Amino acid sequence: MIVEMKTGASKEEVAAVVEKARSLGLDVQLNLGTDKTVVALLGSNTGQIPTDIFAVLPGVESVTRIMKPYKLASREFKPGDSKVTCGDVEIGGKRIIVMAGPCAVENEKQLFDAAVAVRKAGARVLRGGAFKPRTSPFSFQGLRKAGLELLAKVRKETGMPVVTEVVEPKDVKLVSSYADLLQIGSRNMQNYALLTNAGRSSCPVVLKRGFSCTITEWLTAADYLLAEGNSVVLCERGIRTFEDSVRFSLDISAVPVLKKSSHLPVIVDPSHAAGHYSLVPAIAKAAVAAGADGLLIEVHPNPKEALVDGLQSLSPSDFTRLMKELKVVAESVGRYI
Amino acid sequence: MIVEMKTGASKEEVAAVVEKARSLGLDVQLNLGTDKTVVALLGSNTGQIPTDIFAVLPGVESVTRIMKPYKLASREFKPGDSKVTCGDVEIGGKRIIVMAGPCAVENEKQLFDAAVAVRKAGARVLRGGAFKPRTSPFSFQGLRKAGLELLAKVRKETGMPVVTEVVEPKDVKLVSSYADLLQIGSRNMQNYALLTNAGRSSCPVVLKRGFSCTITEWLTAADYLLAEGNSVVLCERGIRTFEDSVRFSLDISAVPVLKKSSHLPVIVDPSHAAGHYSLVPAIAKAAVAAGADGLLIEVHPNPKEALVDGLQSLSPSDFTRLMKELKVVAESVGRYI
Amino acid sequence: MIVEMKTGASKEEVAAVVEKARSLGLDVQLNLGTDKTVVALLGSNTGQIPTDIFAVLPGVESVTRIMKPYKLASREFKPGDSKVTCGDVEIGGKRIIVMAGPCAVENEKQLFDAAVAVRKAGARVLRGGAFKPRTSPFSFQGLRKAGLELLAKVRKETGMPVVTEVVEPKDVKLVSSYADLLQIGSRNMQNYALLTNAGRSSCPVVLKRGFSCTITEWLTAADYLLAEGNSVVLCERGIRTFEDSVRFSLDISAVPVLKKSSHLPVIVDPSHAAGHYSLVPAIAKAAVAAGADGLLIEVHPNPKEALVDGLQSLSPSDFTRLMKELKVVAESVGRYI
Amino acid sequence: MIVEMKTGASKEEVAAVVEKARSLGLDVQLNLGTDKTVVALLGSNTGQIPTDIFAVLPGVESVTRIMKPYKLASREFKPGDSKVTCGDVEIGGKRIIVMAGPCAVENEKQLFDAAVAVRKAGARVLRGGAFKPRTSPFSFQGLRKAGLELLAKVRKETGMPVVTEVVEPKDVKLVSSYADLLQIGSRNMQNYALLTNAGRSSCPVVLKRGFSCTITEWLTAADYLLAEGNSVVLCERGIRTFEDSVRFSLDISAVPVLKKSSHLPVIVDPSHAAGHYSLVPAIAKAAVAAGADGLLIEVHPNPKEALVDGLQSLSPSDFTRLMKELKVVAESVGRYI
Repeated sequence: MIVEMKTGASKEEVAAVVEKARSLGLDVQLNLGTDKTVVALLGSNTGQIPTDIFAVLPGVESVTRIMKPYKLASREFKPGDSKVTCGDVEIGGKRIIVMAGPCAVENEKQLFDAAVAVRKAGARVLRGGAFKPRTSPFSFQGLRKAGLELLAKVRKETGMPVVTEVVEPKDVKLVSSYADLLQIGSRNMQNYALLTNAGRSSCPVVLKRGFSCTITEWLTAADYLLAEGNSVVLCERGIRTFEDSVRFSLDISAVPVLKKSSHLPVIVDPSHAAGHYSLVPAIAKAAVAAGADGLLIEVHPNPKEALVDGLQSLSPSDFTRLMKELKVVAESVGRYI
Repeated sequence: MIVEMKTGASKEEVAAVVEKARSLGLDVQLNLGTDKTVVALLGSNTGQIPTDIFAVLPGVESVTRIMKPYKLASREFKPGDSKVTCGDVEIGGKRIIVMAGPCAVENEKQLFDAAVAVRKAGARVLRGGAFKPRTSPFSFQGLRKAGLELLAKVRKETGMPVVTEVVEPKDVKLVSSYADLLQIGSRNMQNYALLTNAGRSSCPVVLKRGFSCTITEWLTAADYLLAEGNSVVLCERGIRTFEDSVRFSLDISAVPVLKKSSHLPVIVDPSHAAGHYSLVPAIAKAAVAAGADGLLIEVHPNPKEALVDGLQSLSPSDFTRLMKELKVVAESVGRYI
Repeated sequence: MIVEMKTGASKEEVAAVVEKARSLGLDVQLNLGTDKTVVALLGSNTGQIPTDIFAVLPGVESVTRIMKPYKLASREFKPGDSKVTCGDVEIGGKRIIVMAGPCAVENEKQLFDAAVAVRKAGARVLRGGAFKPRTSPFSFQGLRKAGLELLAKVRKETGMPVVTEVVEPKDVKLVSSYADLLQIGSRNMQNYALLTNAGRSSCPVVLKRGFSCTITEWLTAADYLLAEGNSVVLCERGIRTFEDSVRFSLDISAVPVLKKSSHLPVIVDPSHAAGHYSLVPAIAKAAVAAGADGLLIEVHPNPKEALVDGLQSLSPSDFTRLMKELKVVAESVGRYI
Repeated sequence: MIVEMKTGASKEEVAAVVEKARSLGLDVQLNLGTDKTVVALLGSNTGQIPTDIFAVLPGVESVTRIMKPYKLASREFKPGDSKVTCGDVEIGGKRIIVMAGPCAVENEKQLFDAAVAVRKAGARVLRGGAFKPRTSPFSFQGLRKAGLELLAKVRKETGMPVVTEVVEPKDVKLVSSYADLLQIGSRNMQNYALLTNAGRSSCPVVLKRGFSCTITEWLTAADYLLAEGNSVVLCERGIRTFEDSVRFSLDISAVPVLKKSSHLPVIVDPSHAAGHYSLVPAIAKAAVAAGADGLLIEVHPNPKEALVDGLQSLSPSDFTRLMKELKVVAESVGRYI
């Protein structure tokens, strides 16, 4: 942590900074510049110390953090790549894992048809929402427990592990008893009660990025899950920007940035970012080329009849065509699907 | 809702849009332009119908919503201004209500000293956090129930009603039994389980704006609370932008936009937006001049020793000076404090 | 400038950083932490040295700038407040200067009527665009030289100094020969050829903020004008964010941030930010309360007939009412209009 | 264009909208809903009519544009893909064109070494800046005319066509006499004087996206160039967002969105977006997979000694390795390099 003193800060003001730092167990090194005094505070835990503690002291101009505030999710903490397994599926290995299925579970036939279609095309995990967080209280909120039961039934019939969202701390136990992977959605990335509970689940967690959260905040949220002992897959799903031709702007750079900063597997959801089925294939191929370990894609047996997000869902035939293309792209970067 | 057909869309494609709309009970009017066919869908509930239902149909170029997705929070629903009362305090009237106190309740002396100082300077509601949502799992998480008890004690001693945050659905009952106003924080604005539970509380709710949510999304979230029968105060606290000289950019235009679109009272939190005590007075005065019904300001008896957010807290003497200035600004716009 | 080395960086890598810094005349102080080596580079000109020079060296993790890249615009360079005069008007003093008039000069009658109306209401400078930068090549581009001549004529008739925009380096001389204040628009804030030419003009410059530029970039652009010897007034006019209820989100915090970081006068344009006349009064009052030294407001004798930006223009009667209100707000913060 | 009237708007107010529309030659269709009157305005030129003309009328709630404001750049205007040729290079065909070279031309040896290296690796166009727009007036501004002469010399020696930036309207003629492709930079995307002049040049133009401009604004800016008769290549180079781990967030969705909305070729600049050489390969591969027609990549013979942007420049060996990888990715999507 670097504390920049104001021009003309007094010796006493500098001394107060030094004293405060030493009281927190930090090493202190003074840099007496010609124009400015700069105080470097060193120690293994400076990432966890709030900068305000120093910024508020008299004579301080600014405080700059050098260490990142996250720890367990960082590549410095664990240099090798983490792999997350659910059933016989391994996320983070050489095989790129495609998770596909409808946004919301609507009924058994819809889910079964979707599952059979995506499995045939090469998807390895079935997605489907039973609990749906909706921006309006007047919208369809999901089948809830009945949806979970359908997911379990279709898993049994198809052999595909299931990823599904949990939206409330009290439901973690229930959802974990049906799911193979818990999904925490974008709007809950900083719902710390949910993170703590999900961290204690036996199901690994797919942590979607908050649509306006930095990568640093995302990895710090992952620390909540890792601190409780769970495994985490990160899912980039688009960020909010000024551009209005898409729902969210997919942050493709997040893939290499995460690969550099973290050991966690990274998947990409092109469907929620694009908001329109016609843009999904290009973004999906880009994600694979950029190094993503998996994809989360919405597929509906009949998008025109979907209760939720029909516009961003692929039909089974569109998905099948996309999977063929993705296999070639995966091979071009030394992976397979 | 306006459905724009693609250039060259067939009669059958237009007919399918019309049929779908009629099946939902909507009035339909066709506009056969020279270049484009445009279909207008009319009805009192089009704000609650997802645009995807039409956007996904063949031959459709775009779907534009004319009605807003929120209803209960809108000024069309209730033309007059709503007022929210807690104890003997009325929010939304001619008096501008200042709520002040520490970010986090740390101990009895800190809270009591803060309460006495802000009451003396003219604040009418005491703020103080017992449950703290923190970005890092390694940060101070609040005194929780012990903090609520201290708030209740200091309320008894000072006569000030208390606003405090609730972060988890299961805690709504507990927090409501101690608080006069529930606060829902920025990161929970779209935590629908929390909104639904808080909507059923007997405490009115201060709903902070999600730091990357539009005003439309904010008012739609307020509908969750209103639909359960509770009262709502909206609190603008800064939005995430590219500007890095402040924590969040306070969206001053939100005040007149909300006054135009909604009947709900609007308050402003300059402390979390600015992130630095030196910027709080200018933003607070701007908020009052723009028409805010109240302010939420962080004050700590000794900011240098604060466990959380010390840099954005005013000292009692800074707060007293600011309140004197605010009284004059309030009078200049026909209000008082 | 602070150079953070990677964990495990070699002695040679640290030495290369030190050597490079010394070759540039910088003082170097090494901080050998337990986990990390951090190198502090000190000198009066580090704000002007690109961070890349060090970031590109082997073993370097990150480079953080402590000194700001701007110099002449900074309050450290000139502690007192600068005042800018045009005619008998002084910007940056105790009087708040209101500049008002139509977005575009359309014809003599329109300009004259606007000028008379705004002067009567208390405006001290007449605004009016002769050269109009338009997003579409098919839109009205302004009267150009004929517009300048009308501005000069109306100035003579009303005695009001004139502010008008220059959009091209080659026009600086022409526009300067008619105007009292040159305006550089938001889209030209980083048009360095224009800045350099305008810096050499005898007219002071109103430099609007680029709608997606940080305050640091804005002050660095002001350095271009100041380096050539000209005076500068900064004009906040709203930034691009995700919020879609206004054209641009007025960054009210920019006023106190600029007052802290720079000696230059600061004015606010509520019209371009809001994009709607009904929002202009609240934002204008907020700007005055926050400490702005002036306002730039669009007024059209008949907004319904305006060729450009009619929706954000006030009518003369709306402007007159607003000026009465602004006078009271100005007094409440120790200023006058 | 859709005009939504306020609830309770009078017959006279509706009639005024209709009359205004007819006076502009538009077709009008009235939709008298139960709650709202909605007026549809139809005609081939509604994209060029400002919405303000109607929004300002009494009784109008909102005006929504259905037609896009750009015309010549749209795929509706020209359904087939445009190709742009410079020398023997065709941009927009099956071959993906890689343009590479140093950010700034520094001296003959640097430029020559870069050119030889990138040509050998498969680049088809040499990039190099002679005029450099810099955020600070104290930074290196480029070799200007001497830089152009070096570019021409190296083109002669290597046979590679040259793309270089023009920053000022008066320099278009000069730069065109040396360059094969003119580049207009991000900060000049809405510099209309420059666009108009460059539109008249015989060199095709690479138009970089303004870093905070929407795709609609970008295509409208392209209309300035097309209206003068020139050819245009669009270059996505990252947009400004809240994310701070990269200089700019590359908007990968822009590639498929542009392919849908426009007939113009699209290239991607991963170097300026990433700001760090280690991120360039992943973004470059993603761009190719997403359907880009070319890449613009910074390569410096010795990035550690670069005067400008060394951190984002690839070394010749890194570039050679990347080109090998890109060739495989290009083939995986049915293209070649």
